[in-house]
Amino acid sequence: MTEDALVIFTPSGKRGRFAKGTPVLTAARQLGVDLDSVCGGRGICSKCQVSPGYGSFPKHGVTVADDALSEWNAVEARYDEKRGLKEGRRLGCQATIQGDVVIDVPRESQVHKQVVRKAATARSITMDPATRLFYVEVREPDMHEPSGDLQRLAEALKAEWGIEALDAPLDVLTRLQPALREGKWAVTVAVWKDHHAPRHVLIDVWPGYFEGRLYGLAIDLGSTTVAAHLCDLRNGEVVSSAGVMNPQIRFGEDLMSRVSYAMMNPGGDKEMTAAIRAAMGELAAELAADADIPARQIVEAVVVCNPVMHHLLLGIDPVELGQAPFALATSDAVHGMAAEIGLTTINPAAKSYILPCIAGHVGADCAAVALSEEPYKSEDLVLICDVGTNAEILLGDKTRVLACSSPTGPAFEGAQISSGQRAAPGAIERVEIDPATKEPRFKVIGSDLWSDEPGFDATVATTGVTGICGSGIIEAVAEMRIAGLVDPSGLIGSAEATGTQRCVPEGRTHAYVLYDGTAEGGPRISVTQGDIRAIQLAKSALYAGARLLMDALEVDKVDRVVLAGAFGAHISPKHAMVLGMIPDCALDRVTSAGNAAGTGARIALCDLSARGRIEEEVHRIHKVETAIEPRFQEHFVAANAIPHATAPFPELGQVVTLPDVSFNVGDGEGGGRRRRRRG
Amino acid sequence: MTEDALVIFTPSGKRGRFAKGTPVLTAARQLGVDLDSVCGGRGICSKCQVSPGYGSFPKHGVTVADDALSEWNAVEARYDEKRGLKEGRRLGCQATIQGDVVIDVPRESQVHKQVVRKAATARSITMDPATRLFYVEVREPDMHEPSGDLQRLAEALKAEWGIEALDAPLDVLTRLQPALREGKWAVTVAVWKDHHAPRHVLIDVWPGYFEGRLYGLAIDLGSTTVAAHLCDLRNGEVVSSAGVMNPQIRFGEDLMSRVSYAMMNPGGDKEMTAAIRAAMGELAAELAADADIPARQIVEAVVVCNPVMHHLLLGIDPVELGQAPFALATSDAVHGMAAEIGLTTINPAAKSYILPCIAGHVGADCAAVALSEEPYKSEDLVLICDVGTNAEILLGDKTRVLACSSPTGPAFEGAQISSGQRAAPGAIERVEIDPATKEPRFKVIGSDLWSDEPGFDATVATTGVTGICGSGIIEAVAEMRIAGLVDPSGLIGSAEATGTQRCVPEGRTHAYVLYDGTAEGGPRISVTQGDIRAIQLAKSALYAGARLLMDALEVDKVDRVVLAGAFGAHISPKHAMVLGMIPDCALDRVTSAGNAAGTGARIALCDLSARGRIEEEVHRIHKVETAIEPRFQEHFVAANAIPHATAPFPELGQVVTLPDVSFNVGDGEGGGRRRRRRG
Repeated sequence: MTEDALVIFTPSGKRGRFAKGTPVLTAARQLGVDLDSVCGGRGICSKCQVSPGYGSFPKHGVTVADDALSEWNAVEARYDEKRGLKEGRRLGCQATIQGDVVIDVPRESQVHKQVVRKAATARSITMDPATRLFYVEVREPDMHEPSGDLQRLAEALKAEWGIEALDAPLDVLTRLQPALREGKWAVTVAVWKDHHAPRHVLIDVWPGYFEGRLYGLAIDLGSTTVAAHLCDLRNGEVVSSAGVMNPQIRFGEDLMSRVSYAMMNPGGDKEMTAAIRAAMGELAAELAADADIPARQIVEAVVVCNPVMHHLLLGIDPVELGQAPFALATSDAVHGMAAEIGLTTINPAAKSYILPCIAGHVGADCAAVALSEEPYKSEDLVLICDVGTNAEILLGDKTRVLACSSPTGPAFEGAQISSGQRAAPGAIERVEIDPATKEPRFKVIGSDLWSDEPGFDATVATTGVTGICGSGIIEAVAEMRIAGLVDPSGLIGSAEATGTQRCVPEGRTHAYVLYDGTAEGGPRISVTQGDIRAIQLAKSALYAGARLLMDALEVDKVDRVVLAGAFGAHISPKHAMVLGMIPDCALDRVTSAGNAAGTGARIALCDLSARGRIEEEVHRIHKVETAIEPRFQEHFVAANAIPHATAPFPELGQVVTLPDVSFNVGDGEGGGRRRRRRG
Repeated sequence: MTEDALVIFTPSGKRGRFAKGTPVLTAARQLGVDLDSVCGGRGICSKCQVSPGYGSFPKHGVTVADDALSEWNAVEARYDEKRGLKEGRRLGCQATIQGDVVIDVPRESQVHKQVVRKAATARSITMDPATRLFYVEVREPDMHEPSGDLQRLAEALKAEWGIEALDAPLDVLTRLQPALREGKWAVTVAVWKDHHAPRHVLIDVWPGYFEGRLYGLAIDLGSTTVAAHLCDLRNGEVVSSAGVMNPQIRFGEDLMSRVSYAMMNPGGDKEMTAAIRAAMGELAAELAADADIPARQIVEAVVVCNPVMHHLLLGIDPVELGQAPFALATSDAVHGMAAEIGLTTINPAAKSYILPCIAGHVGADCAAVALSEEPYKSEDLVLICDVGTNAEILLGDKTRVLACSSPTGPAFEGAQISSGQRAAPGAIERVEIDPATKEPRFKVIGSDLWSDEPGFDATVATTGVTGICGSGIIEAVAEMRIAGLVDPSGLIGSAEATGTQRCVPEGRTHAYVLYDGTAEGGPRISVTQGDIRAIQLAKSALYAGARLLMDALEVDKVDRVVLAGAFGAHISPKHAMVLGMIPDCALDRVTSAGNAAGTGARIALCDLSARGRIEEEVHRIHKVETAIEPRFQEHFVAANAIPHATAPFPELGQVVTLPDVSFNVGDGEGGGRRRRRRG
């Protein structure tokens, strides 16, 4: 009589007794251990690799003999010879249990592995994409028991993988018969799973065992820029990223001007829809080319965007979003075909998923920020500002979350700024101004050196210094305020008043020259009075939105602030607070989340359960409508001063002392030097 | 204290007690009485009309007082004034119960009304179409409780009509917002219901209450002709019908020649797919124009066809159907978008449904014949022959049903016949030949008179006599056999041998002149030796298929025969049996079913439950593969004689005595007159 052997899997700790001769994969499946397999245990895919442990395991109470697993078999030897099996690894479908054993499932062999999505916060994404590959062997057709090839494929998928209710689009159906015959009745299929209903869709089919991987697109469709990541759906890794300008800019810089365009020009919404869909298709093709992968292997796309972009992408006239009550045509997440929203360059059966919208002014991008930053799980009161042409603002904790959007305009993205440009090599992204000499130094994208460090010129020789990007203009204005070149009302002082020749007259106002490359045929990069005004409008809108949410929660202070946005990773918390973009808060509690909306899109792409989660959470997020709230205007006006006309900013005061200057000479030409107290 | 009133509905007999003041519609809904309503009881649609009965009803044990229902109200009065309410009718949503009452629900007020589909057999279709109209009033958007217009529509549809899991295609979504506003938050929507899953799809939306009706297409896609009916989805009525030639004929007359074309010509399958899809679209547009209805109101299409047509319509290369084991790409019913199969001229969101296939050679057309004729419910053994370019044959009863297909070729449809033409005005459809004088008389489509009756010439003055259609050629050949002009081997005798100058030499053989219009510039219409041979090949294939099924069931006789086909209604049972198309059977047990495949399509169009029914039944139908069965060839050869070389045909013998002629003179020129015994 042979006794069953004890098998313990780590890291799960799941254990059970199995008859000797049971394959490790079989034991894992029976215990519900998360061990991957694409080929169903046929020794083809090598995804079920495990690391057996030998010797004494006091913690588990077992001692593992050297012969606890069967000896290497021919399949393992062939695999090792052809591709190399890592030291100590076995194929779970080949190695059989011969005695008590402890078996570790390495991370890459877990289906639902967790992948770290960013080092700073060490949060992780659980891999559980909607579309996965399955290898199956299909029963051959039998004239006497006739059934279609699709039905026999479905039967195999159900028996081996538990996949039920399989639909096949016509395009895939036309390729099924040749693939089955080429693969000698074995195929690898990509199957998409609905997270609402027990429904699956066949996305593609390849003869035999398909070595390739599946990819998905996470797209952050902003009013000004479209940023996309191409992700490996096996491990969540970003294999290429790209961004383009939103071509709708030619119809209007901001959202409301595009809504107006649609209202004023019959068919204008259709023009804008066509423009953005074309851009989406090109962007996808570019990402596939960059990563050197066949576009057919891109089988999914997740899109996040604000409500106006959402409607225009879907081909819905955004006119209702331009007037109260700002009714969305649809607020739930939108499932569809990727090809329908312009992604015609990827797999023709690829699915698209657009996150739910929270309200008529608070879109899927805000939902994505929530998914990424999880304010609804926060123990303390967190303010999350996703800064773009429109700012998405969330405030709350695990008891309650509020959201609003605020029309900041494109200034924070470098648009409407005299020397503004998008974040690209050559753009000034960091600025420091010496408070004593009033001399600036800066860093440009593409160089690690400050402009006053030796060798700087060489590092920018190719790109030149071309303009200021969004984070650069924020630092420049804040530094000017710290250095006493700009007063609380936002006026730039004259050379006389400030004591630096860099302050030059420009019409009836002044500008501060940050860089003069004219001698070498380059540009002269200044911060003009108009630039300051644009930044003031943008930051006032952002602050007023945040303040409105604080009013609604009846709080005067937040515990922490998360700054997000396409350039969120680059915003300096100190400078943001000097500008008064955000309410006062301990500086070490202000963090950057990078492109949180894009991260949210990536989470929804990699983890099906996240989609269900955010679809539920958005219903619990309470929306505040800035456009009709009278206090918004009040907050907006008070926030025009730098940092603020009335709010005290005590935390900021502990770190920076802002000079008490005033350049107001009554006619707007900052010439005087009258002191007055900050409120 | 007021006592609840007793309410009895007829014809259902459902009864219950209700508080006085309860609307009749409410009572009906609570009792599950099948009373229609599109507007949900708002007095708009008038679909809930009922006929209250007054006086004594001993059968039900009640006496109904004159005031058992409330008096006419303003809504009923307005409706009566505008459109007229039939005598004795009330609107179920307006009339309230005031005392014991008996209420009849007239047929047209039943949602799932039964409609008689043909007078002969008095079978009925239960109306339960997949797509129906619903009127709903939708909650207005509220900025403070933001949710999309689609979500509020779905909420209303769920609350009022129990419709769950609603999807909306993008195209419909783009029209939702304007429709809701134009209709002042009331819309009529067309909603499609999945019969497999709790899933609904929004097909279209109209502002306010939509007066129009929904229509569907039932399409019988044959190898030679495409026949389509446009049906009213409210009552199943056919509002227009049309047929066109299958444009694929230019790629090959029969199925196998089209499969060969696809095999020999790369891209040939795509050409054939494009051709048939274009024809489908044109046919649908023509039907809508004929019936003078907006094509947008055609919201569904059901297609039946043989497997090769099935694959070519879906864009699947039919190559596998040309060789054993004749594997179908898919055998289950195919759900899809009508636009995908060429129906781009109807509602863009219209759904298509193709019935399941039984096997590689036994298609959705055969399933449709089964759905129409229901052999699986038959008490006696029934043989069903659906005659077309390919014949679909079913044999069985409620215990077991077998099916096969047989390649009859297009002769029965008038193709490959010297004077053949499709069934259209001017075509000879009936033939009689006097056995004594050997003189023919005939009827042509478009005239009710025989050709020897007074006034015939006037009735065909416009059309002329142009050729012979399928049923005409069958009768002509059978009559020639009865009149002794054709011998059992199929040879036509000479004028000398037959004693009529209508038998004229044609090369080395003879032809029988049925009509000579050459004097008036018309055609000369003959039945040639080649025509007889074509009919012999066709009828042998049909008989051999039927016989093979009888072998499989181990029977020598069937209880009854149903002849179906595009011209099935016009086939004379006697002539079919003289030809030996079908096995011997009592003549009064041979009936015509008309286009049973087309009827099956119409049933599946009108009744969702029929789809589920046939999807189950096809799995129980046992398929016999004629193409590889050695006995098929044997049966085919024996069936070449008219009526048969060896089978006795005793039932036929009781009605007709076939002359024992032989025109074989050893060289094929039917000149002799040698008698021999029929086998």
